[in-house]
Amino acid sequence: MEYKFLSKIRSPSDLKKLDDKDLPELADEIREELIKTVSKNGGHLASNLGVVELSIALHRVFNSPRDKIVWDVGHQCYVHKMLTGRFSDFETIRTPGGISGFTRRNESEHDIMSGGHSSVALSAAYGIAAANKLKNKKYYTIAVIGDGAFTGGMVYEALNNAGRAGKGTKLIVILNDNEMSISKNVGALARYLAVIKANPRYFRLKAKTENVLNHIPLVGKSLARGLYRVKTIIKNRVYNSTMFEELGFRYMGPIDGHNIDHLCDALEGAIEADYPVVLHINTTKGKGYGFAENSPDEFHGVSAFDLDSGEPIYSEPSFSDRFGEFITAAAEKDKRICCITAAMALGTGLKKYSEMFPERFFDVGIAEQHAATFAAGLSRGGMLPVFAVYSTFLQRAYDQIIHDCAMQKLKIVFAVDRAGFVGADGESHHGIFDAAFLNSIPDITVMSPTSFCELEQCFIKALYHTDGPVAVRYPRGIEPELPDDFVCSDCDYDFYGDENAEITVVCYGRVFAEACGAKRRLAEHGINIKLLKLNTIKPISNEAVKKITDSAAIYFFEEGQRFGGIGETFADKLFKFGYTGKYYLTAVSGEFPKQNSIKGLMAHYGLDEVHIVQKILEGRSE
Amino acid sequence: MEYKFLSKIRSPSDLKKLDDKDLPELADEIREELIKTVSKNGGHLASNLGVVELSIALHRVFNSPRDKIVWDVGHQCYVHKMLTGRFSDFETIRTPGGISGFTRRNESEHDIMSGGHSSVALSAAYGIAAANKLKNKKYYTIAVIGDGAFTGGMVYEALNNAGRAGKGTKLIVILNDNEMSISKNVGALARYLAVIKANPRYFRLKAKTENVLNHIPLVGKSLARGLYRVKTIIKNRVYNSTMFEELGFRYMGPIDGHNIDHLCDALEGAIEADYPVVLHINTTKGKGYGFAENSPDEFHGVSAFDLDSGEPIYSEPSFSDRFGEFITAAAEKDKRICCITAAMALGTGLKKYSEMFPERFFDVGIAEQHAATFAAGLSRGGMLPVFAVYSTFLQRAYDQIIHDCAMQKLKIVFAVDRAGFVGADGESHHGIFDAAFLNSIPDITVMSPTSFCELEQCFIKALYHTDGPVAVRYPRGIEPELPDDFVCSDCDYDFYGDENAEITVVCYGRVFAEACGAKRRLAEHGINIKLLKLNTIKPISNEAVKKITDSAAIYFFEEGQRFGGIGETFADKLFKFGYTGKYYLTAVSGEFPKQNSIKGLMAHYGLDEVHIVQKILEGRSE
Repeated sequence: MEYKFLSKIRSPSDLKKLDDKDLPELADEIREELIKTVSKNGGHLASNLGVVELSIALHRVFNSPRDKIVWDVGHQCYVHKMLTGRFSDFETIRTPGGISGFTRRNESEHDIMSGGHSSVALSAAYGIAAANKLKNKKYYTIAVIGDGAFTGGMVYEALNNAGRAGKGTKLIVILNDNEMSISKNVGALARYLAVIKANPRYFRLKAKTENVLNHIPLVGKSLARGLYRVKTIIKNRVYNSTMFEELGFRYMGPIDGHNIDHLCDALEGAIEADYPVVLHINTTKGKGYGFAENSPDEFHGVSAFDLDSGEPIYSEPSFSDRFGEFITAAAEKDKRICCITAAMALGTGLKKYSEMFPERFFDVGIAEQHAATFAAGLSRGGMLPVFAVYSTFLQRAYDQIIHDCAMQKLKIVFAVDRAGFVGADGESHHGIFDAAFLNSIPDITVMSPTSFCELEQCFIKALYHTDGPVAVRYPRGIEPELPDDFVCSDCDYDFYGDENAEITVVCYGRVFAEACGAKRRLAEHGINIKLLKLNTIKPISNEAVKKITDSAAIYFFEEGQRFGGIGETFADKLFKFGYTGKYYLTAVSGEFPKQNSIKGLMAHYGLDEVHIVQKILEGRSE
Repeated sequence: MEYKFLSKIRSPSDLKKLDDKDLPELADEIREELIKTVSKNGGHLASNLGVVELSIALHRVFNSPRDKIVWDVGHQCYVHKMLTGRFSDFETIRTPGGISGFTRRNESEHDIMSGGHSSVALSAAYGIAAANKLKNKKYYTIAVIGDGAFTGGMVYEALNNAGRAGKGTKLIVILNDNEMSISKNVGALARYLAVIKANPRYFRLKAKTENVLNHIPLVGKSLARGLYRVKTIIKNRVYNSTMFEELGFRYMGPIDGHNIDHLCDALEGAIEADYPVVLHINTTKGKGYGFAENSPDEFHGVSAFDLDSGEPIYSEPSFSDRFGEFITAAAEKDKRICCITAAMALGTGLKKYSEMFPERFFDVGIAEQHAATFAAGLSRGGMLPVFAVYSTFLQRAYDQIIHDCAMQKLKIVFAVDRAGFVGADGESHHGIFDAAFLNSIPDITVMSPTSFCELEQCFIKALYHTDGPVAVRYPRGIEPELPDDFVCSDCDYDFYGDENAEITVVCYGRVFAEACGAKRRLAEHGINIKLLKLNTIKPISNEAVKKITDSAAIYFFEEGQRFGGIGETFADKLFKFGYTGKYYLTAVSGEFPKQNSIKGLMAHYGLDEVHIVQKILEGRSE
């Protein structure tokens, strides 16, 4: 589509040529493009609508990529992408081969870090700023962090370090306060920010005083130092100091994040500080699109939706939905069940549960580390905690699962959602590590159901028939198509197909549906195979392995990392039980899969029906 | 040894029977026992000397184990152990089969959580307190956390959650402020605490006002609410509010942590609050032992030492020392090198480096997550960051290594110290996960030198001849005894022994020395073997694997987790390259190894010379 201003912006320098008075119209154009494209491609809408003016102001005031803008998480980078030469590709966002819905270093020199996970931007930005300081470079580094991300402890680790970096550190933290993260923002920090904001005169008064104080002439170094101390005392007396100032930052704000003039002024002010600055801005998530302003939760990350009604175009029940239904029913009977989420109540299917059992529902914010250890505490106190979390985000609790859950042998259930490929979110979000990293942890049980019915069976086993920590991992999206002879199982493994077949295919989770298709196709070629479907992937049943050691060839297909994964453990077990045939493992071999449809990814990594067939035909002709 | 008071304490109830006036003498006895035993067994001295009075006060005021005391890290639990029935076993602390130097759940009902890693206690304690609140139990949960641990972000995640738990949550956080963590405490928080402490009247004044305000009668609910608001306003006006109050806690302190009376009063006060409380106490690390008070850093974790001189009895250069020497020399030539530590400057051998290059040295506090991403930022800014960290603590940065280092393909060097068994620290500290969890990460290179000379070769390769993130992992302690034909190698792998031998032993790191011993012994039995020593363990050289596929039997010995480890990856590769012989993997199979000498652990897990010989003789007779 052709826009009066937006279509002409091929780089930030084009943006700088525009008149101030034209910027609001540019903002309107950007919003139109955002809503139109996300309604088709899906993606993050509300957060991007909230940072239209901020993105414009940043690229007006700073010179990217020499000045380095680091977007935390990166799901709010759409406007930044439009302003840095990617408007013409914008319609490809989140599609196979198209531009990413997150910042990606290989996409543009303006994407300083590849994003995806929360609360990391300040650590990276401070590293860049520290490097620039060591090299005497004058560039600025700007970290843009939402208030939701401030519930993640890493931000405090970074504040604690960057706050002492002092004069000459060209680092600006923009606290983008939209009063929520992915779910409604939680906890004490939110309350604290509300208190700061209750005093709108804070920034203005402060700026005025600062101005007066800045005009006191400074003669000589020691006098300067003395005066600085006096200024500090005056300021602390006149205004309450904020937590950020206590941590060593200059604090500015809060200011209106939808006023480009104010934003530019504030950014110029931050530059003059020549000191680490926290600039606190207020934005409205979903700004400019009524449906999104009213339900920013539901418009955080969306599938394609109808422009006029705001309703999703397509929606079938997912594994997340079924988990939510199951655990709500279970919690009704068992008062010990407590559900924990790290700011993902909606995504993990816990919305209804949270309404029915508010006192046994804990949204801890984007704090997976705390969530795991808090679950351990609940368990130690006699409750039955269930931590529902996306596979990719559970990575952050690896140490806590080892140290506070497994080492304590405490009963904790991890409901690991989005295990396997996730599709359009790409590199940073695929759940392809959980099987491998959980595999390395002692005394944990890991189950991987294929169907909705098995999902329930697994959770029943996890809650009531397994000791110690248990993870039940299941894919994003809907139930795969199952064969006619499918049996919902509560066993650790199942066999399908001709038990005398010389070829065995081993798999777990979603790949099973593909393997069943392959089995049918191979039968057409006159090749009979048997399928070993692992329902418990850690520990692998020795009995199951022993049953296939007389195979001529075994093929393991794994929707996850090869190195350290279940297929490698299986290889070792085959040796252990004297297997002497061929073994072929197909998995993701040491790379970060790009954005693509689930179908496309399964095909790319040789895990779909067609490639399973091909692999077996090849193996046979070796 | 027989003590007047200490010897009679078999449980906290015995402690409660003592007269107040006898407690200082008991404290002296405890200090005597601490110094005497730690001088023999090694262990954590300074931190335990600092909490003698606190431990006594806690067990006087609370009823453990019904009230639950959760010690963060747990290295300061020695006094707690003496007071909870373990005085008679105290001389066995940290010895094989003896009591642990950390809290251990399987050791006593008074050890609420097994400890070892930092900054987790409040998450666990809040979980326990939340469970008690749900179950209407009146017990208190007390988390004891050092100021050093407050540099870890998890504490903020927990504060942010626990702070909103509100009335009726029986949770007390004791901030044990000794002005340092393991190394000198760093960052903005330390400065902030110093500011609070600069006002000694804070606590007293506050208590008085609180008292007056508490006597205003409350009539009806809305009046109560109104009055509470007034009280809050008065308090905020009269005293600066602390960060903890802003996060929703009642704050008390700071008070003298070596005065048992004051401590007991304060704890009683905290109970009356019926609200989450932060009680801030000042203690002196090393209190009562001059050498330790003067050098608390060096007396944090110690080996056996001479009582009179305070000097360690034994000290040979370790891998850490050699790393420190190497990197100091390298940094002199290469101004891009920056070293990062997470509060372990001394332990990782970086003390001299930190003195020579203060501007390129970053002690980030106990913040491994931030450290990894900060390193990524430094790298992005053109520096050459080296993050020196213990294997067990690097677990906490798993997600950041994946997302901020590997996914960005940035050059970052991880100097992974204490890889493999660590000995007396036991379950929580063995570096037996790094090979497995790094194995699962794409685009990272992992090297495992055997000798000091190879340590240097690996770092040269890591700094200058490898793309992307690189980990060099090396064991705790001294160089192992090497064979006469040892060649310091800069290759990815080396072969030793008879190249025509039908038996191949594969290993890496410290196990190589044991395997060489086994080779000699087997030769005496007339059995020739060849050794494949992997220097780069990720990726495993395909060339190396192909060279041994004609073996009749291959034995892999791994000082690390079996599941997801290098030996399993090796198994899969053997299949890939058509190996049809036997494969025997010996590793730590899914458990947490207990405290023991390194020698004892190597033997227990079948990794020493004797057991390698035995395994091969057994395999031969199969």
